[in-house]
Amino acid sequence: MENKLRILIAGGDMRQIYCAGRLSQEYDTAVIGFDEKYFSDNSESAKSVLSDGEPFDCAVLPVPPLDDEGMLSTPCYTEKIDPYTIKKLLRPDGIVFTGKSDERLTEIFTGMEICDYMKREELSLKNAIPSAEGAVQLALEELPVTLNGLKVLIVGMGRIGTALTEILKGFGSDITVAVRNARGAANARIHGVKSVRTDKIDTDYELVFNTVPSLVFESELLNRFSDKTLFIDLASKPGGIDFDSAAKLGKKVVWALGLPGKTAPVTSGEIIAETVSDILEERSERYDV
Amino acid sequence: MENKLRILIAGGDMRQIYCAGRLSQEYDTAVIGFDEKYFSDNSESAKSVLSDGEPFDCAVLPVPPLDDEGMLSTPCYTEKIDPYTIKKLLRPDGIVFTGKSDERLTEIFTGMEICDYMKREELSLKNAIPSAEGAVQLALEELPVTLNGLKVLIVGMGRIGTALTEILKGFGSDITVAVRNARGAANARIHGVKSVRTDKIDTDYELVFNTVPSLVFESELLNRFSDKTLFIDLASKPGGIDFDSAAKLGKKVVWALGLPGKTAPVTSGEIIAETVSDILEERSERYDV
Amino acid sequence: MENKLRILIAGGDMRQIYCAGRLSQEYDTAVIGFDEKYFSDNSESAKSVLSDGEPFDCAVLPVPPLDDEGMLSTPCYTEKIDPYTIKKLLRPDGIVFTGKSDERLTEIFTGMEICDYMKREELSLKNAIPSAEGAVQLALEELPVTLNGLKVLIVGMGRIGTALTEILKGFGSDITVAVRNARGAANARIHGVKSVRTDKIDTDYELVFNTVPSLVFESELLNRFSDKTLFIDLASKPGGIDFDSAAKLGKKVVWALGLPGKTAPVTSGEIIAETVSDILEERSERYDV
Amino acid sequence: MENKLRILIAGGDMRQIYCAGRLSQEYDTAVIGFDEKYFSDNSESAKSVLSDGEPFDCAVLPVPPLDDEGMLSTPCYTEKIDPYTIKKLLRPDGIVFTGKSDERLTEIFTGMEICDYMKREELSLKNAIPSAEGAVQLALEELPVTLNGLKVLIVGMGRIGTALTEILKGFGSDITVAVRNARGAANARIHGVKSVRTDKIDTDYELVFNTVPSLVFESELLNRFSDKTLFIDLASKPGGIDFDSAAKLGKKVVWALGLPGKTAPVTSGEIIAETVSDILEERSERYDV
Repeated sequence: MENKLRILIAGGDMRQIYCAGRLSQEYDTAVIGFDEKYFSDNSESAKSVLSDGEPFDCAVLPVPPLDDEGMLSTPCYTEKIDPYTIKKLLRPDGIVFTGKSDERLTEIFTGMEICDYMKREELSLKNAIPSAEGAVQLALEELPVTLNGLKVLIVGMGRIGTALTEILKGFGSDITVAVRNARGAANARIHGVKSVRTDKIDTDYELVFNTVPSLVFESELLNRFSDKTLFIDLASKPGGIDFDSAAKLGKKVVWALGLPGKTAPVTSGEIIAETVSDILEERSERYDV
Repeated sequence: MENKLRILIAGGDMRQIYCAGRLSQEYDTAVIGFDEKYFSDNSESAKSVLSDGEPFDCAVLPVPPLDDEGMLSTPCYTEKIDPYTIKKLLRPDGIVFTGKSDERLTEIFTGMEICDYMKREELSLKNAIPSAEGAVQLALEELPVTLNGLKVLIVGMGRIGTALTEILKGFGSDITVAVRNARGAANARIHGVKSVRTDKIDTDYELVFNTVPSLVFESELLNRFSDKTLFIDLASKPGGIDFDSAAKLGKKVVWALGLPGKTAPVTSGEIIAETVSDILEERSERYDV
Repeated sequence: MENKLRILIAGGDMRQIYCAGRLSQEYDTAVIGFDEKYFSDNSESAKSVLSDGEPFDCAVLPVPPLDDEGMLSTPCYTEKIDPYTIKKLLRPDGIVFTGKSDERLTEIFTGMEICDYMKREELSLKNAIPSAEGAVQLALEELPVTLNGLKVLIVGMGRIGTALTEILKGFGSDITVAVRNARGAANARIHGVKSVRTDKIDTDYELVFNTVPSLVFESELLNRFSDKTLFIDLASKPGGIDFDSAAKLGKKVVWALGLPGKTAPVTSGEIIAETVSDILEERSERYDV
Repeated sequence: MENKLRILIAGGDMRQIYCAGRLSQEYDTAVIGFDEKYFSDNSESAKSVLSDGEPFDCAVLPVPPLDDEGMLSTPCYTEKIDPYTIKKLLRPDGIVFTGKSDERLTEIFTGMEICDYMKREELSLKNAIPSAEGAVQLALEELPVTLNGLKVLIVGMGRIGTALTEILKGFGSDITVAVRNARGAANARIHGVKSVRTDKIDTDYELVFNTVPSLVFESELLNRFSDKTLFIDLASKPGGIDFDSAAKLGKKVVWALGLPGKTAPVTSGEIIAETVSDILEERSERYDV
């Protein structure tokens, strides 16, 4: 008889519920940190509560794993869960999957391997799709014109820039991609769109998506755009648009972070599950031999 | 000196403001039936109020032209306008453009030509784009999954079905089009998508767009779909989905009518302007000779 | 026991062999007018030779059906076949499918229904795909530059124009469609490409596909194009390009007729089979009731 | 007065003529190693023959630079050119651009910088487009069916795999991409196509493009494919298809190397010119400061 790995999905938003649903197809799963109502019809198999005393092989913590007070992040639960409770449910040599690295975790889960699934390139690649779809949804909601025929600038031809390009080609937008070098320009060509160098951006666009995490749109450049242009910034941390200048100049800017979880929680949860599953598979391949 | 036609845009929602803006690029326009605030920065030239006593050559009435009490439809105006006021501002042999035929108009604008711009095929074709974009926006808002990889059924391969197909190919959806005959199937093939006959629809779709104005989804067929399937009905009048059965069976159905005006009022207004302009041009060509 | 229709595929090029192969999946078929070597591995079931004396319900004649001397068109056969031979193999009330109407057929197959499958709209629609693919192949072969980024003009947004548009979007060409009116322009917009009125064509294109069967490129217009521009004319009969002027001016023109049979004989034969099958099905539905 | 760099384009096929034409727009160019007839109308400025005695700043050698006997590779020239002749025309500290590294060059051009433009990533990226277009042309020529609706496998989702995917989506092919890992699968998803792991390839494809330079299709796997499947191998050096097994098993395989130069010599020459130009520009930026 095959012995399935036992995985505990602990806390988080709806994504983790869907993540649990997907993992339960392959593993022995249990869920903690959600009020009863959230299980509804989502996934029968996710409901399985902790019954026997056997310890879990892994825990899947959410994005981010802990709140400000150091408790498990549980936005869908009326009670508080101490992360040490989770630790006690795990094998001493268990694996802790987390959606963001956090120094406090190392202290809590001493002796266990801590693995940040958000850092896996495949997850970023997969998340590019819900990010791009969410950004396009924002554009559809905010703009009083059609995307068809619209002059659109996409800054960056990485994974999100590529996903946006593919979607907007379907809309029949007039797409230009801003790239840093000849390689980026060649990549734009492969995808059938025009390109411009990032340092030579012209300003007659009605919609601008930024996907690069370094300042591109400073005050002077922003000022040359029409007030009707909509900017959607998808880049994390500093972002590519100067917040203060944009506010001062009265530019329309949407800061679009964490789109995957908002736009497509089911897909987003499944992506987490697939990533956890891939990591476990790689490990088993490594150890099986 | 060229003598520009004088056009009065009378009443309606924001679309008519944008329509006026576009028409003012070519004609001598004036607007009536909007509170001052709606003009804001929309279009300088649209503001031109009626000053001199010269009569207008045409009036552009909104969609629909009159309200239940027979007054001009003016949702953006705090006062009421009697359609006879409009009549008095027109030449006795003027043209009345309307966004829906209405028997009361014939009575009011006696002796004038009444022309329903909503009936022009080019307008329907152009409106297919904002309709399709609006429907996709609804799908993005309603579904907790990405459109990428989603099993989608589009019923009908007319103008809206075609527009939806083009957009959803960009999203990487798994598209099937339901068609009535071999011609429809061949048309689907040209657009690179699979097809199925409307009377043999299978039910494993997660998203269904209906674009045909006759009943396709009756109780028995609806019942075979999953409760998670989202139905978006874009067809006017009877629509393609049995309303009562859908409600009784607890199916998720969105009735999406009048999307162009809601999703893309600027584009929508410009489409009306272009259509009015096309009609006037055809007439002048006819009479010039 | 179901009684399958008996169909005789008589003469023609390889398309008819593939047509027979497809029809044999559904009907009782036999083939006449091909040397043994052409059967090779093409289709087991197509080989079935005439054995019993039972008459056939239908005959499928090729495109065109007869040669100049009035014999069956049999380019893949070393012998000659008199069409009266075919007649004798048919039921007196049989159906004769032909790939082109020909007055001589009415005389020969007296009393039988003669049905031109090439006139069916679904066949034209389906043939638009091999036509467009063949035209693109010609462009790839003739041009020393990539289609990617190339300025291409497609004259006409009918079925072949649409098929070309879809293919060339994939190549990342810079596409403009020449259309006659506002409806054509709106259709181009739905397909995400620019349009120009046919009477206002500009001339900075490196590749031009003509799909409309009326003269568009007369001497004066041709003269304004660069000598490097490649013209591919897909329109039948008069075509859209003035042959003599093009020759005199030294323009590069490819007259691309009968592409489906040349580029994709298998697909082309299957399209004939599907059309014959559709016609038979419609008839049986009509008579069954 | 600006002092333009002097560049000598020496030998090679038609690509180098077009390369010279493009470079002459920016630099002072001269061409050596071509018979008069090849200049025809290709590029006025490329004709400029060596007149004054001033040495050149750079030489652009072809792909490959030398023939078996160590002479300059000059397939378009009736005479032989010794590479030392080229050396003498260059400044002692000149740059030698070559289309392949060759140990003999170091010996000949002692003291000069030798720079292999074929190794630049941007050139590979740009060449992916003519490679993919050439491969699609081969498929169109070889297959008796349309690419529309065809089951196609693309092995590898690198630059050529991506370019092929984009083109074949336009054709409406039924595309699967074979990838090595979760990242590849995610990348396929972004491009809207299905994927399969390279070690789990199923065999019901009618067309297979290989783009990876390591053996994928060994005897056993090849054997499971239909004899009608067309294989097109675009990978250099060992390639992905076992040559001997394919021959023994009677599989249809096309080895498609050097496509850019064959399919699109103009584009290909321009890509070389752009790359040389990019390299020179980077250098001048570095030294200008």
